[in-house]
Order: sequence, then C-alpha cells, then structure tokens
Amino acid sequence: MRNFVLLFQCLDRRGIVARISDFVLRHEGNIVAADQYSTDPEGGYFFMRVEFVLSGGKYSKEALAAEFAPVGNEFSAQWRIVDKSETLRMGILVSAEDHCLLDLLYLWMSGELKVEIPFVLSNDERHRKIVSQHNIPFHYVPADSGDRREAELLSYASGTTDFLVLARYMLVLSAGFLKEYNRDIINIHHGFLPAFKGADPYGKAEKEGVKVIGATAHFVNDKLDEGPIISQEVEHVSHKDNRFDLARKGRNLEKKALAGAILNYVDYRIIRHENKTIVF
Amino acid sequence: MRNFVLLFQCLDRRGIVARISDFVLRHEGNIVAADQYSTDPEGGYFFMRVEFVLSGGKYSKEALAAEFAPVGNEFSAQWRIVDKSETLRMGILVSAEDHCLLDLLYLWMSGELKVEIPFVLSNDERHRKIVSQHNIPFHYVPADSGDRREAELLSYASGTTDFLVLARYMLVLSAGFLKEYNRDIINIHHGFLPAFKGADPYGKAEKEGVKVIGATAHFVNDKLDEGPIISQEVEHVSHKDNRFDLARKGRNLEKKALAGAILNYVDYRIIRHENKTIVF
Amino acid sequence: MRNFVLLFQCLDRRGIVARISDFVLRHEGNIVAADQYSTDPEGGYFFMRVEFVLSGGKYSKEALAAEFAPVGNEFSAQWRIVDKSETLRMGILVSAEDHCLLDLLYLWMSGELKVEIPFVLSNDERHRKIVSQHNIPFHYVPADSGDRREAELLSYASGTTDFLVLARYMLVLSAGFLKEYNRDIINIHHGFLPAFKGADPYGKAEKEGVKVIGATAHFVNDKLDEGPIISQEVEHVSHKDNRFDLARKGRNLEKKALAGAILNYVDYRIIRHENKTIVF
Amino acid sequence: MRNFVLLFQCLDRRGIVARISDFVLRHEGNIVAADQYSTDPEGGYFFMRVEFVLSGGKYSKEALAAEFAPVGNEFSAQWRIVDKSETLRMGILVSAEDHCLLDLLYLWMSGELKVEIPFVLSNDERHRKIVSQHNIPFHYVPADSGDRREAELLSYASGTTDFLVLARYMLVLSAGFLKEYNRDIINIHHGFLPAFKGADPYGKAEKEGVKVIGATAHFVNDKLDEGPIISQEVEHVSHKDNRFDLARKGRNLEKKALAGAILNYVDYRIIRHENKTIVF
Repeated sequence: MRNFVLLFQCLDRRGIVARISDFVLRHEGNIVAADQYSTDPEGGYFFMRVEFVLSGGKYSKEALAAEFAPVGNEFSAQWRIVDKSETLRMGILVSAEDHCLLDLLYLWMSGELKVEIPFVLSNDERHRKIVSQHNIPFHYVPADSGDRREAELLSYASGTTDFLVLARYMLVLSAGFLKEYNRDIINIHHGFLPAFKGADPYGKAEKEGVKVIGATAHFVNDKLDEGPIISQEVEHVSHKDNRFDLARKGRNLEKKALAGAILNYVDYRIIRHENKTIVF
Repeated sequence: MRNFVLLFQCLDRRGIVARISDFVLRHEGNIVAADQYSTDPEGGYFFMRVEFVLSGGKYSKEALAAEFAPVGNEFSAQWRIVDKSETLRMGILVSAEDHCLLDLLYLWMSGELKVEIPFVLSNDERHRKIVSQHNIPFHYVPADSGDRREAELLSYASGTTDFLVLARYMLVLSAGFLKEYNRDIINIHHGFLPAFKGADPYGKAEKEGVKVIGATAHFVNDKLDEGPIISQEVEHVSHKDNRFDLARKGRNLEKKALAGAILNYVDYRIIRHENKTIVF
Repeated sequence: MRNFVLLFQCLDRRGIVARISDFVLRHEGNIVAADQYSTDPEGGYFFMRVEFVLSGGKYSKEALAAEFAPVGNEFSAQWRIVDKSETLRMGILVSAEDHCLLDLLYLWMSGELKVEIPFVLSNDERHRKIVSQHNIPFHYVPADSGDRREAELLSYASGTTDFLVLARYMLVLSAGFLKEYNRDIINIHHGFLPAFKGADPYGKAEKEGVKVIGATAHFVNDKLDEGPIISQEVEHVSHKDNRFDLARKGRNLEKKALAGAILNYVDYRIIRHENKTIVF
Repeated sequence: MRNFVLLFQCLDRRGIVARISDFVLRHEGNIVAADQYSTDPEGGYFFMRVEFVLSGGKYSKEALAAEFAPVGNEFSAQWRIVDKSETLRMGILVSAEDHCLLDLLYLWMSGELKVEIPFVLSNDERHRKIVSQHNIPFHYVPADSGDRREAELLSYASGTTDFLVLARYMLVLSAGFLKEYNRDIINIHHGFLPAFKGADPYGKAEKEGVKVIGATAHFVNDKLDEGPIISQEVEHVSHKDNRFDLARKGRNLEKKALAGAILNYVDYRIIRHENKTIVF
C-alpha cells in the first residue's frame, strides 16, 4: 500500500472537491485525510491537501500526475502529487549553537523525523564529533560575515538536498544563493517575529521588558526574517529572567518551533501562498 | 444564500467523499468547509462534516434530506443535514455560582453565541435580576438534593429547548430525566476529568498538591461525570494557591471550556461516537 | 488585623532585608508575604515588596511611614507604605468595544476586583444602560480624534480617581493630559507589543500570517504603545483565522491581560523601574 | 564568592525573617534571593529558602550550620544549609524508552544541568553506546518484574549518589529498596496524575477520549505513583491523536516535566511537606 499526497490550489469555484475525490475513486484509491481551506466562500482562493492510498500500487507518482493533469488544467490550478514513501533529503546548516541540531538528530535517530540527512554543514568545527557519531557526513566551511563562502555551500547543497534547514545558522544567505539553490529553506528565528527582527532578539526582549518571548520558524526569502511564517512558539517570562534566562527558555521554543515546522514540511502539510503559509 | 451542514458517519470504505461531494455538486452547492476523520485507514469508522452553500436556495433541509437518503443507505450511514440559518434553543440551568451564566449571557448579547435562550432556570432566586435585565424568562425552581423537582424541570425544558446547558447546576439529573428529555445536555465539570470526579474537585486538587488544574465540558449521560468529553482547559498552579485561589483560577477555565464546547456544538462541529467526541 | 504593604527600591547592598524585617518585628508585625529581586547580585538595583500584619492595629499608614523614614534614608531608597484596607478608586474609559468593560464590571460585582469605580466614561452612549444597571455613574463625552475633549476628561478624573483604566479607549491621550492627571493609567493594547503598535493590529497580524496573536496591558506614557509592559497573553492561531476570528480570539486575550494587570496593580504587586515593570 | 542556600521550615510565628536575615547580615552575607510561604497567616506552617553570598568565604557549610543551630532551635525548625558550589551526584535509571535519558544527557553536556552523573543503569543494553560516548559509566542490570535485582541496584547506587532519577525506568522499586537507599528518588510518570496511575496511561487517555494529556514528575514513595508531585506539563490533543500520537506528544511533556523538576531540585528549590511540595 502506498500513500500519495495531492497538494492543490486554484481560484475557488464549484465542484473542485467532487472532481478530485472522483479522480481518487476512479483510481481505486481511498482518501485517508483531506483538508481544504478557502480564503473566502465567494471568489476566494482555494487550497486542498488530499492524502490517499492506492491499494493496487499499480501507479507511480508520475503516472498519476499524467492522469491528473487534465483536472489541474480544468481549474487552472497549481498542484503536485507526491509519493510519501520517497524520503526527502534535508541538509542542515548550523553555527555555534547546537541545541536545534541535537534536537533534529534525536528526532531523526528515533525515527520520528523521516528524512535523509546528506550532511551537516557548519562554520564551527566542534560539531564534527557528534555529527560523525550519527554516521552523517560533516562539512566544515569556515564562513563568516566577511566571506560567506556561498559557492562552497552551493557545491555541497545543490543536487544533494531537497531542502535546507538553518538550525541556528547565523549568516544571512544572499539573494543570489537563494536563486541558485532554488529550493525551500527553513530558518529558525530566535524571536517572536515580526517583533525583534535581526540580531540579538533576546537582548531586545529584555530591554523592552516583554512578558512573553517567542521563536519563529519560517521560509527564507530575500528579505531578512520576513519570509512566510510556518510556526511560532511562545512562553511567559518575568522580570526575573535576564538575557541568559531568556536565551535558555528561548532554546526550548526554538527546538519546538523548528521541529514542528519540519515535521509538517516533510509530511507535505504546508502550502505557501503570497507571503503566508497554509499549514494543514 | 443558505449554509447547510451534513454530519455523516459509517464504516469506512472507498468512495464516500466522492459520493458526498458529487451530491453537493449536483445540487449546485459549493463546499465551504469539509472535515473528515477515520479511526483507521483500514476497516475503521469514518466521520465527515461538510458545510456547503446552495446559491439557488431552492432547497429546504427536508427536501435535501429526502434526496440524500439513498446516499446514506448506500453506506449504511448515520447522518443528518441541518440548516445553519435555524437557531437552536438553549435552556440554561444554574445553581449558586454565576460566572458561567454571566459569560454565556455576554457571548449571547454580543452576538458571538447565536442561539435562542427560552429560559434560565435556577434553584437560586438571586439570578432573577441579571437574567431579567437580558429579557430572558427566569424560572425559579427550589430543587435540592432532597427533592430535585425533575418533573418541574421537564415541564419547562421539554418541547421548548433543543439542548440544555448545566452552567454549574449542582444537582445530578436522574437517568429517568435524561430518558424523558432525550436531547443533548452539556455540563461543565470544575475539574480535570477523569481525575477528581464528583464534589469539591478543587479541595481534592489542593490536597493532592497538583501543579495543574483543569475544567471539563462534557455531555451528560447516566454515569456521574463520565459522559463524552467535549473540551478541557488547564492552567498551572503552585503551592501558593489555596483552594480559594484554585476555585478562582478554575472559574476562568470553566468559562473557557464551557463556551468553547457550546460554540462548537451550535456550529454542528461535534459528533458523538461511543464514549468519545469528534470535534471538527 | 490590618495588612500593610511596603514597596521599596534602592541600590543593592548588604543588610536591607535584615533592616526591613527588623522594622516589622519591632512593630509587632508578622510578615505575610515577601518578594525581592535584584537586577544583579553585585552592584545591582534592589526591589522588595513586604506584606505584613500588625496584630495590634495601633498604627496608621502615616505613623508607620514616619517611623520607617529613617530606614528609607539609610539606604537612599524610594519607598511607600500602603494600607490594604483602603480601597483604590479606578476610573474606566471605554470606546465602542465593550468586552473589557463588561469583564471588569463582572470582576467588580463578584468581589474579585476590590476597587471603587467612581465612573465609567465613554464616547459611546450605548454603554450607559449596562453601567447604570451596576449603579455606577456614566459620563458620556463625545470625544473623537478631531476633539479629544481632554479638559472634560480631566474634570471627571482629577481628584476622584487613584488611577485610570483604558478598557479599549481608542483615543490617544496627550502628553499634556498625562502631565495634568499625573497618576497611573493602564491601557490594553490589542496586539503583541512591540510588534503591531498603533491601529488595526489584527489586520496587520493577518497580513503577516502570524501563528500566534497576543494582547498587552501596559502603563501609558507619552510614546504611543511604548509604556512599561505589565502583562501579555498569547494564543495560537492558524491560516483559518481571518481578521474577525483574530479579533474574537483577541478579545479573550485582552480581557485576560487587562484583568491580570489590574488585579496585580490593586494588590500593590507592580513596581515601575525605567521602562519596565517588576511584577511580584 | 560562595553561594549558600538555607532551607527552613517551622510553625509560623513572628520574627522568623528578621532573625534569619540578621543571621546572614552578622556573617557579612548578602541575600541574593529569598522566598517564603506560609500555609496560613495565622497558625500556619512557614517555609523559607534564602540564598546568600558570603564575600569573605571564611565559612564552610559546616561552620555556618553550627552557628545557625541556635536559631533553628529557637523556632523548633527543620532546616539545612547547603553550599551551591558542591555538585550533587545524580544516578540515572532507565528502561527501553530513551527520550528522557537523551534529554538529560543534553542538558548535562550543555552545562545547564550542573550535576555529576556517576552512572546510567539500565535493563536495556542498547543504551550503552550513547552513554559511553558521553564518558559516563554504564551498568547493565537485566532486571525485570520477575527479578528486580534490587540488591544489585543498591550496590551501584548506595554511597555513590545523592539522588536517583527514574528516567522512564519501568520497574516499581520496593519499599525495602526505598528504605535502604534512603535518599530522594525522582520519577517521571507519563500521565496526568492523579488520573491514569499505573501502566499504559496513554492507552487509558485514548480510551477516555480526553482532550488534554499530561506528564508528572514526582518523588517516589512506597505507594505507586502517589509520591509528592513536583511538576506537571500538559498539552491539548484531539480525536485525531491515536495512542501513538499521544505517546509522541507525551514524550515532549515527559522531558519538560522531568527536566524542570530536576533543575529545581539541584538548585535546592523544593521543600517536601506532608504529601506535597513547595517549589520556590
């Protein structure tokens, strides 16, 4: 038995669900999960995620897609069909702070996060040991703000990864890099966006005397910390929490927000639309 | 434009979604929201809630139901179609504590809770003033554990209400009453069920030294505080909270859990299955 | 038995707690609660709140203060002693949205919020009925952004109130007003400051696609929405929440944040320091 | 500079705080943090935690204790003075599930959890590798419900540890073991006590259809899952969560509750009183 996921979006109009579910039925599929959302009941934009099982297993992803194409055309839709048995390849970039890295390694080891990890890349040599213990290739690239060594990053990431995770990678990636890489990149920002963009958010939070801190996982685009938000986690703090306490509490929020975002991503639950995300 | 909701459950098998969405399409409807859930991808039980708009408005709920009946039969399903423009009639029973009553009155006044309230019934005369100020009939029934006056309750509730809310009504309703009334009754229990069934849950919570308290909204059945749970709310507490603090914090939880349950109920988002609820 | 609260702050140095607790002991007092905080163990700033009972009841607040003055001088401290049996007078200002007003009225009625309410003042006449039903004077002042009628506000608030609450009062108060009134003013901002300052925060939140919304209670100063934060409440949201849903969920957060801030304020648990608050 | 903590409890009466703070002052100490709590302002039981710095460093814990003894006697108090620079020795017992173990190892590696770990003991050989990679001795003891091998456990734990952590150790320790070991043991229960005592709490939670699950860290006593609760964590769940989802979400709660409890324990923030805890 194989699970497929159809992700579908188009201008809303009558009959979409009927057409899609009929398609699944005609291919002897059973719908396991279906989620839909329309920005407006009248004249809105429609999004759907359908997960279905084909008992026969006669179809490849490509064959299904070929047969679905007329349905997509009928609604002028953007869509894709993915085969959940295919494992995504997730490259990890990380700087000095290792809490998100270790959390992802644990999720991966325990089987909760079903991805391949072709490499962990870091500008901090100290992570080599723990990464190697997990039998994952480790690339040391001594990038810094003076020389981001993006060609080197690209040479590791292009073609070997389906998406990248910036697990507290503290260098901004240029618009050129994003264009060249041309796949999704998920970043964890250690603050509650859109407040506290940029550097030292916990310092800013302490200075403002906030009573709640947060962390934000988002897609990277060419504006600093302004890509579509995927998940946010928050926690109450008090005057007693200095910037070190805030950073410590923040680490838990960062782990939770990033892991949540990635788990949804690899389960094909996220649709990007304009500068926002639909997370089914 | 009229919104209908179809609630549907049956043994899971192939083609249900296609059949239902085709039904909606053939009646020139547009699906506004659809939720489904299966207890198991193979051989499980299937639940669906479909909200759809009929532009034409040519159909009554009854006419639609007559046309849908063959679909229901085909799957040996339990189902019903409701017209969201019809307002449910919600009777409120309350004893001395008024925080849930006042919260419901506020939600109702502000238009957030779209129900008719045929009456508030209480064994505490003091609520008459506030209820009357809202132009809602108030019935004083001096029931107590010695004489629950259930015939009197029934004479007020039967035929005039679609469901009852026990907004901190502290008398147990007998199995006989439940059978006679024969409609849904939603209760708020001031504790985190299944811990702390029965009386004085905050006293018990204090005695056990718990660090989290809760409140539980549930359907009433003939076992004390064991009906299907609809919603639960929780909050951290500490050694500093004595039973009065716990009760105060608990009041907020009770308001939130009860209001949440009722808002989902009147939006036809709740399906009962065995001793549990599916809340879409 | 009378409860007094000492609020005390000075540069941290050895012996403060000993000196203060000795003072209480010599006046035959029993310390009921004590909280302290220092921004730094070495050379920081020290804050303390001590609540104590004088069994004898021989002392007035003024007499105690006179006796405490030398202690204050010894540490060059800012301090005050309040008598918890004296009730604070809280004026309420509100515009069209009534959810915070109603919540405060309920807390007051139920005895949880122990204040006098000399008046509710609004630029919306519709609140007269509910306010009058609570036997609280209602002042209608048709202020708008063109004419804020601050002289009129002052004529009602000066001398009759110990502090003001802006329970969704949508006009900015001028620096001149703040200077004239010269007492604390607590505002509820319907957003998670410092994100979303100014108008229409829920619209901004929807546009940014945030996954968490918040509400912030803060003291008013002469910079828009930048006064010291007292409390913040947050809740997860999703793509399904349009700006009306966000506003609805936000109302609960606003009620919770504002009520929490006021309850701490009237219990003398808040110390302002620079642009932040210590909330014991 | 050395930090000491005084933990103190006695029947409440006038002058305790003054006496203790005077003691610190006379020893040229500066109070860094002080927390107190009384079960009742009149005739209650009083608890205090005072953390203080002695600049001189002339005193040992023992010398301070000798000088404090008369104060303790004066109030017939239970008390102890600890030196925060002394590191506690924490033995870890774990069965098959490793998420709590790994979380503790990470906290320890990163310096957040300041303890010595003399050993990890398990009835599951598979943990040897990861434990050894951390340069911590690993003891394999193939205990099971038929033979708990408690003599062997004792031979490892007695004299080498200051307290034990059951990080998902699934065998009940006998009253005899507890008596012999005679130090604190902290357990993580994968359920929201007092609901769901004993085995398979997530299965029970699924069966009851609860909408919130929890995890509870508590001291072990000779009644199964009834020792004093230290911390509890909770999370909302829905009908979509089957027992595997509940277990997965529960693992995060377990990690959070256990880590929180241990961090407070090693910071000497927990006082046991009857069957409850005061956590300052």
